[in-house]
Amino acid sequence: MQALQSLKLLIGTPIAENLLEKKHALHVYNRTAAKAQPLANKGAVVCTSVKEVANLCDIVFSIVADDAALNHIVQGDEGIAANLKAGGIHICMSTILPATATHLSSLHQQYNNHYTAAPVMGRPDAARARKLNFLVSGNASIIEIVKPFLQDAGATGIWEFGDNEAAAHVAKLCSNFLIISAIEALAEGINLAKKSGIDAQQWMNVLTKTIFSAPVYINYGNILLKEAYQPANFSLRLGLKDVNLVMEQAAETNAPMMFGKALQERLQQCVANGLGEYDWTAIALALKEKSVV
Amino acid sequence: MQALQSLKLLIGTPIAENLLEKKHALHVYNRTAAKAQPLANKGAVVCTSVKEVANLCDIVFSIVADDAALNHIVQGDEGIAANLKAGGIHICMSTILPATATHLSSLHQQYNNHYTAAPVMGRPDAARARKLNFLVSGNASIIEIVKPFLQDAGATGIWEFGDNEAAAHVAKLCSNFLIISAIEALAEGINLAKKSGIDAQQWMNVLTKTIFSAPVYINYGNILLKEAYQPANFSLRLGLKDVNLVMEQAAETNAPMMFGKALQERLQQCVANGLGEYDWTAIALALKEKSVV
Repeated sequence: MQALQSLKLLIGTPIAENLLEKKHALHVYNRTAAKAQPLANKGAVVCTSVKEVANLCDIVFSIVADDAALNHIVQGDEGIAANLKAGGIHICMSTILPATATHLSSLHQQYNNHYTAAPVMGRPDAARARKLNFLVSGNASIIEIVKPFLQDAGATGIWEFGDNEAAAHVAKLCSNFLIISAIEALAEGINLAKKSGIDAQQWMNVLTKTIFSAPVYINYGNILLKEAYQPANFSLRLGLKDVNLVMEQAAETNAPMMFGKALQERLQQCVANGLGEYDWTAIALALKEKSVV
Repeated sequence: MQALQSLKLLIGTPIAENLLEKKHALHVYNRTAAKAQPLANKGAVVCTSVKEVANLCDIVFSIVADDAALNHIVQGDEGIAANLKAGGIHICMSTILPATATHLSSLHQQYNNHYTAAPVMGRPDAARARKLNFLVSGNASIIEIVKPFLQDAGATGIWEFGDNEAAAHVAKLCSNFLIISAIEALAEGINLAKKSGIDAQQWMNVLTKTIFSAPVYINYGNILLKEAYQPANFSLRLGLKDVNLVMEQAAETNAPMMFGKALQERLQQCVANGLGEYDWTAIALALKEKSVV
């Protein structure tokens, strides 16, 4: 079996390495050829186009930054849908608008091949540790074929959301919204604790050992206490992209989102002030007096 | 040893019962005498005034709804400070403004007795299960005396914040802010998931078994999915009171709180629309179309 690995996101490389470790024959493509080179050194065949990958492979993984990039590699004569063989499977790991998945899935159907939604939860270190979680939806029999490949790609959990290709993407957007909400709340709480002169580290100890004993609060609490906003594990710019998708889905479904709207504006402000390539926890910098924001 | 137990909050009764179970001689007072009666049946002596309790006891526990109620029972000729013996200890379990603690602590000092900050984290069921967490601050040697009493009152954790009486109250406000932020984010996420037609229960399963594996998300997620806003374990009205305190502390310390401000307005709106005695998770009702809010 073979797979396309676009390396646009930092998480792409460790996923591809996981597949290589499990002895899969891997064909890879990235717009920037140099980014694929380290994988070639580990046994991957570097292709020069999406079309070439789709022609050569039975299963194609994709992970790209946004809906436009995904549409670009899937649609048209040079795209994955037109060039993947009948019965082939496209596993889409990106965080995208659910409507985009619905559209691309029907495009794949026209070519008698398959779109499987498998957006991935986890930062690059989780990929390296094989502790990724995939949210999956689409044709049930195709998902059974896909599961062992997700395991080899680094899954610790595969969570099914039924046969609607859009469903897993909705779940992913809701999850990212909950994470960035937790980051903002943590940032405001830590800032209030510090400004009030109490031991913010001890406050985080209490919470993460009691009612907030979850990885999100432990990991992001630690980053926020240390103000370690670089290097980015997940950039603020991509965080804004995801919140924009959340708000587009909210508008589509008539779901009011008070926090969502506030976060969208705050992240826009942060990007406008030059924080786009910082980690998305840098949203906390907006709380600083005389800060860039 | 003896203790005053004001039953204004639902959590007061199980804490008093815990103390009785541990064979403490307990004197209790509540403005509404009938509320103290069940404790009398279990061996507590019901007093007719705060002054009587303070005169009779070495250690006084208080838990009341707000700063005004606390000032009322501590200050003046009839108050705890004036009537507690020299060396006596007042353990304040309420969620109050840190500045109130500073003020009352110095009042206690004038009478040569002690104020210990011990705001409590946990809902009534946690009190009954002896799984409360106390955030404590104040004179270190007094805290050593107080600890075994907090254990008997139902502590699973006692978390120290140093010798400033205000510090534990800051930590409590920050904690409640983090909880109500999580509730609002969960409510928005669950609503978006449902409006998008996906299995919101499965989405909560994923989160609470992975990156959000914490009691706050498990418990409140469950309440929000069931829309079980009554009976209240912690009323929306008290939630608003706490967020008002958070915002007062934020103004005092010049700490911007985007979520805090949004929550304050939303909770005010909910109380104005008759949801004050619902559980504070009923903030989710503001997301319903054609709802009361």
